[in-house]
Amino acid sequence: MKSITSRDNPFFRQFIKLEDSARQRRTTGLTLLDGIHLISAYYLALGSPKTLIVSESGCENAEIKRFLAEQAGVEADVIVLSDVLFREASLVKTPTGIMALISIPPAATIPVHKDGRDETFCVLLEAIQDPGNLGSILRSAAATGASDVYLSEGCADAWSPKTLRAAMSAHFLLRIHERSNLAEVARTFNGKVIATVLKAKLSLYQTRLTGPIAFVFGNEGMGLSEVLLQATSEQISIPMPGGTESLNAAAAAAVCFFERVRQMER
Amino acid sequence: MKSITSRDNPFFRQFIKLEDSARQRRTTGLTLLDGIHLISAYYLALGSPKTLIVSESGCENAEIKRFLAEQAGVEADVIVLSDVLFREASLVKTPTGIMALISIPPAATIPVHKDGRDETFCVLLEAIQDPGNLGSILRSAAATGASDVYLSEGCADAWSPKTLRAAMSAHFLLRIHERSNLAEVARTFNGKVIATVLKAKLSLYQTRLTGPIAFVFGNEGMGLSEVLLQATSEQISIPMPGGTESLNAAAAAAVCFFERVRQMER
Repeated sequence: MKSITSRDNPFFRQFIKLEDSARQRRTTGLTLLDGIHLISAYYLALGSPKTLIVSESGCENAEIKRFLAEQAGVEADVIVLSDVLFREASLVKTPTGIMALISIPPAATIPVHKDGRDETFCVLLEAIQDPGNLGSILRSAAATGASDVYLSEGCADAWSPKTLRAAMSAHFLLRIHERSNLAEVARTFNGKVIATVLKAKLSLYQTRLTGPIAFVFGNEGMGLSEVLLQATSEQISIPMPGGTESLNAAAAAAVCFFERVRQMER
Repeated sequence: MKSITSRDNPFFRQFIKLEDSARQRRTTGLTLLDGIHLISAYYLALGSPKTLIVSESGCENAEIKRFLAEQAGVEADVIVLSDVLFREASLVKTPTGIMALISIPPAATIPVHKDGRDETFCVLLEAIQDPGNLGSILRSAAATGASDVYLSEGCADAWSPKTLRAAMSAHFLLRIHERSNLAEVARTFNGKVIATVLKAKLSLYQTRLTGPIAFVFGNEGMGLSEVLLQATSEQISIPMPGGTESLNAAAAAAVCFFERVRQMER
């Protein structure tokens, strides 16, 4: 174990940049997991993180102590931060006491075949801006058994700490392909490619969703680009009897994914 | 029209407090709407806001100009802020150029009977913490025709600018009852009161949702309190074939509301 108490420490300075800077994450290929649940999920899927960063008070926490003694703690480097520095580094209001420094895993390394994940169910996301929305979509995709999620250039960073927190460990159950050419993915997908739009002839509930499916969702404000829309095979609408015209992107995605679950169950 | 260019101006100082301070909103009974779409929706439902706050560049924007000339601008006081002050006051990254100062409308003044809103469909929210989640739930509730949303003490502030932005004008289609006694509301509701929990005997898709219904959702981390759970009439689960155990609260709410829409359509 190594202790850090100065914010001028070179490791600490690099480390806190990973919170805020997408460029730092991309150039180093590293990101941060904040909290024992996210770190445990990573460990189960992919083994020990490189480095665990624990706060002084975290060292006294029973759950963290057990984790360090039994599992990843044995294989990872452990660095202890003073509580002041840990609070500064953590995005979370109530510090969790433990973070992990990990290499962003290539999509191919994620073991999606566990838990009945289904390669015939994929998700394409174009320019989804909000990390909370992106995380929520990943979480719903994992819950409903998707295998692959393709993100266009211009999406929020899938591996930012904010997205990771919102996704609640979905990252370790999905193959996430960033900076994908979505029109190309749509054209080569071996099944229906379905986009939700404001006014389509077919409603979600009139559409058969039980075969191989890729769902496509667009930017929160702008919707889908014309190029991507052209590459879809079906356009559907979610009926809104309340008279409003649109939904939050993550809510719309959840509604579509779970309508597929319902149809598959019958 | 009155112009403000100094951040020491007393109106400006009160005004920016409304962005961040729930207490300021509660003691004054005022809040802010940011952007022409939200303000137009308010105008349609409830008439002219008290005061419109326009940035210098906003005064040159065609859509804002038209709004000021044709509608509310005639009835409201209009205050022009320098672009610097406007940017400081607005939570939005790309300033919209127009904000409105409004009195928080009492639930009873919202005209929910337009657009087929249905008093037999209500939503109860216990200690939902995140303004983005709360806004998204309100947006889905409005889209699916709910009439009343009851919020417990400890929920995020329904009338904060963040919640308002996430709800995309749902506030003017729903009666929102803050600081409600949810167990009391549940006990006196004239229909099914349904809570989603992790492991219930019945799934969402095995449950008849076509009669009078109140859906109950709990805190993002903790779920529902025992008192409220006791006051529900049915507990159901959302099936998650992907093997994960939970969803984002706003995603779960959307899935339930739209399953009701599906059943009502048949």
